[in-house]
Amino acid sequence: MGMGLARTSTRTMSNMVQLTSERYPGLSRGNFASLEETDLQRFRDILGPGRVLTAPEEVAGHNTDWLRTVRGQARCVLRPRDTQEVSALLGHCGSRGLAVCPQGGNTGLVGGSVPVFDEVVISTGLMTGVESVDTSAGVVVCQAGVVLEALDTRLEEVGLMVPLDLGAKGSCHIGGNVSTNAGGLRLLRYGSLHGSVLGVEAVLASGEVVDCLSSMKKDNTGYDLKQLFIGSEGTLGLITRLSLACPTRPKSVNLALLSLPDFPSVLDTFRECKGHLGEILSSCEFIDKGSMDCVTQNLGLTCPLEESDFYMLIETSGSKAEHDEEKLQLFLEEMLTRGTVSDGTVADGPGKQKDIWQLRERIAEALLKDGYCFKYDISLPLSVFYDSVTVMQERLAGLGVTRCVGYGHVGDGNMHLNITTPTYSQEVLDRIEPFLYEWTSGHRGSISAEHGLGFKKRNYIHFSKSDSAIFLMKQIKQVFDPKGIMNPYKVLPDQ
Amino acid sequence: MGMGLARTSTRTMSNMVQLTSERYPGLSRGNFASLEETDLQRFRDILGPGRVLTAPEEVAGHNTDWLRTVRGQARCVLRPRDTQEVSALLGHCGSRGLAVCPQGGNTGLVGGSVPVFDEVVISTGLMTGVESVDTSAGVVVCQAGVVLEALDTRLEEVGLMVPLDLGAKGSCHIGGNVSTNAGGLRLLRYGSLHGSVLGVEAVLASGEVVDCLSSMKKDNTGYDLKQLFIGSEGTLGLITRLSLACPTRPKSVNLALLSLPDFPSVLDTFRECKGHLGEILSSCEFIDKGSMDCVTQNLGLTCPLEESDFYMLIETSGSKAEHDEEKLQLFLEEMLTRGTVSDGTVADGPGKQKDIWQLRERIAEALLKDGYCFKYDISLPLSVFYDSVTVMQERLAGLGVTRCVGYGHVGDGNMHLNITTPTYSQEVLDRIEPFLYEWTSGHRGSISAEHGLGFKKRNYIHFSKSDSAIFLMKQIKQVFDPKGIMNPYKVLPDQ
Repeated sequence: MGMGLARTSTRTMSNMVQLTSERYPGLSRGNFASLEETDLQRFRDILGPGRVLTAPEEVAGHNTDWLRTVRGQARCVLRPRDTQEVSALLGHCGSRGLAVCPQGGNTGLVGGSVPVFDEVVISTGLMTGVESVDTSAGVVVCQAGVVLEALDTRLEEVGLMVPLDLGAKGSCHIGGNVSTNAGGLRLLRYGSLHGSVLGVEAVLASGEVVDCLSSMKKDNTGYDLKQLFIGSEGTLGLITRLSLACPTRPKSVNLALLSLPDFPSVLDTFRECKGHLGEILSSCEFIDKGSMDCVTQNLGLTCPLEESDFYMLIETSGSKAEHDEEKLQLFLEEMLTRGTVSDGTVADGPGKQKDIWQLRERIAEALLKDGYCFKYDISLPLSVFYDSVTVMQERLAGLGVTRCVGYGHVGDGNMHLNITTPTYSQEVLDRIEPFLYEWTSGHRGSISAEHGLGFKKRNYIHFSKSDSAIFLMKQIKQVFDPKGIMNPYKVLPDQ
Repeated sequence: MGMGLARTSTRTMSNMVQLTSERYPGLSRGNFASLEETDLQRFRDILGPGRVLTAPEEVAGHNTDWLRTVRGQARCVLRPRDTQEVSALLGHCGSRGLAVCPQGGNTGLVGGSVPVFDEVVISTGLMTGVESVDTSAGVVVCQAGVVLEALDTRLEEVGLMVPLDLGAKGSCHIGGNVSTNAGGLRLLRYGSLHGSVLGVEAVLASGEVVDCLSSMKKDNTGYDLKQLFIGSEGTLGLITRLSLACPTRPKSVNLALLSLPDFPSVLDTFRECKGHLGEILSSCEFIDKGSMDCVTQNLGLTCPLEESDFYMLIETSGSKAEHDEEKLQLFLEEMLTRGTVSDGTVADGPGKQKDIWQLRERIAEALLKDGYCFKYDISLPLSVFYDSVTVMQERLAGLGVTRCVGYGHVGDGNMHLNITTPTYSQEVLDRIEPFLYEWTSGHRGSISAEHGLGFKKRNYIHFSKSDSAIFLMKQIKQVFDPKGIMNPYKVLPDQ
């Protein structure tokens, strides 16, 4: 899988991903210094030899993205333990002009988390300290490398939760989540990271530490700089520590899986569940038939409902089980009576709920098994939400595409549109892009709702942002990182 | 009231506020151009003569803040109706080097919304268009000058609400709320404006329009520039239009007023109400005895409970009245049985609820009737929250202070500490500042939780922000406003 087309290639291992520099031959390496033995020696002085990885088998995984669509050529991976070490490493890279790729759990979907050429990888993998948990205010302060699921488990002990959940929770780092402004399954309820991150500490390209690590819920003293680090994908600095507002963990969670005859019924159900479930609604996801087929066929999972054109997951989280169940029951009865919903099941207990969540959370993994996956993550007005899938299905007819499917966060207007092929196909890509971006922009949607721009989408930024905004972004980049060493070739468009 | 000490003064009217330039004699006017007749002619060409105010009696109100503590010397007030007019006005001011003070409802509490010297006032008072309301997504797009309460009334018609409420709602503009990152009474439930503002359109000092006016819930395309306009108090640009995510309006609202014997009981009640009320808790406010006395004595309002050292307002907002009432009832019974709460009343119906809210919302107005009010708005860890008041009471003993009281958003860790005197007293001020800022900073609190820095607090920014952060802010200011004409003498510290 993810093999790339047979073009001239230096691939030596048969299942290795094509180098990014080969797949994108128009791209040229920036004017950065090249790594020398003296640099490695300096890194070893700072970290000790055990945390400077240079063996090809140790470095390989850090060069390739999870989707197996891009591959960089970093020769070394640095594994600092704390802010001071990150500062010393970046101080050296900055003064030498060495380009750097900050890396968390490497679960990004737009090629933002791996090097493009030979950038030095600085991994947050060893920065896993949870420094404090204020249970009465509901605030955690931690290092950037804590795995999302581990952080949530730690908070569960004191009755709190991370206000963020996504399929990659077992591998992604909270610092990476913040750097990419990850959205996920419960944004509908708990809001975006721009609201829940209370503070950020980051290290700039110069090695300077910027302390915006407030742990107060409210702080209106000057420009809110931490917001710039949220979602800038490591191009302005490397996030080392952060503080996060954490909601009280719900005492009662209910999950319903519904089948629906058509997309208007999905929208109707969304509108109705907002009214009926109100403050206890914690997730509203949809899955089309093609996505459900993929997860059952490719992963062998079982859908407990009869086959249908659309499915939805509706989750409630509340403080009193009887109340929540009563609200959910009334809502489901009304939807079934009306015929808006064809069938439904309510999962009782965490085990059954987890089984149902897998049908949604493992779609990305299932799609990869088809071979190559072209992934799109767009925001759209609900009136044209599913048109994005049908328009692309028509446009790709006859091109040998395996699937063209949609699923995602309908409650947030966020569509995950995915097209799979047996292997990478330039013809398919050219048929999708820039058409899909133009179509999305025409509806005033966003060409990247939550995945970010990373490497793959940076040159399409103008479909969602004005020239004046892009110009300001470039000037801000210049302020934070004058030499441009922080995660180059990402987020901002090529000249 | 607000007369200032008897110092040399050019005051001609007996109740006029002392000029800012006189009260702060160390301050010098920036190197900006002075308004000439040709400038006024250009403004009239852009707006027509009726919207260029120059008559002293028309300009006076725009020069003085609501607290009557600062007074500028603007000679003209401009009243554009749309973005293009703002762009033309700023284009002229930018090219001429005329300083500008953007102004919304002029309800700010830190001297940020009035000129310091002779800055030209650009008022959003006529920019009152509500452009679109998407009821199914819950998103409103409007101009900056819509009054908060008017916007909420408009949204009520379609079952939505503004996720923000504060005492000044009848006068403040939504654009001003966003520019100052206003917090208010329901941040606890609906989060900060950094989360709920979806898009901003702003005009820079050059007259350039920056369009970041997405109305999508999620948009991860490049740096989130709109965040910089949120809370920068008009120093980076003038917000002309914005889009806002609006929650579903609750079907059921309950409000309880409680009396409590001591501050530990306040904290205990906050902890318990989070557990019992969970997702329906929409406000958790506290009022100390001194604040309650002020609102009853100075405004003649009546508190329905027996006198007590502390009071709390607990509000619930939910989708099902029976459920909400049951949760609230159980919570109150437990608190009364335990003795944590001495007495309480639940207001049934909007009229009685409004009466109770007045006891909290009109404290600021009541304090002004004492004469001069020194206002502080700090975030603190809950463990030292009320110490801020007792420490200041001790420190000010014997100085003839009328009141030293505290109230505010205990649920957000946000204390409003207020000290009143018959007239402005430099001696009292010197006793408060910088001591209180040092004390707050020592507890890693914020010296401005929600009011912003404006004019009065800009030079104390270093108590809450690091040097490296302040340096980045100054560089960002330079990018957005190279000549420094946008709301000068505000937010950023003097050199």
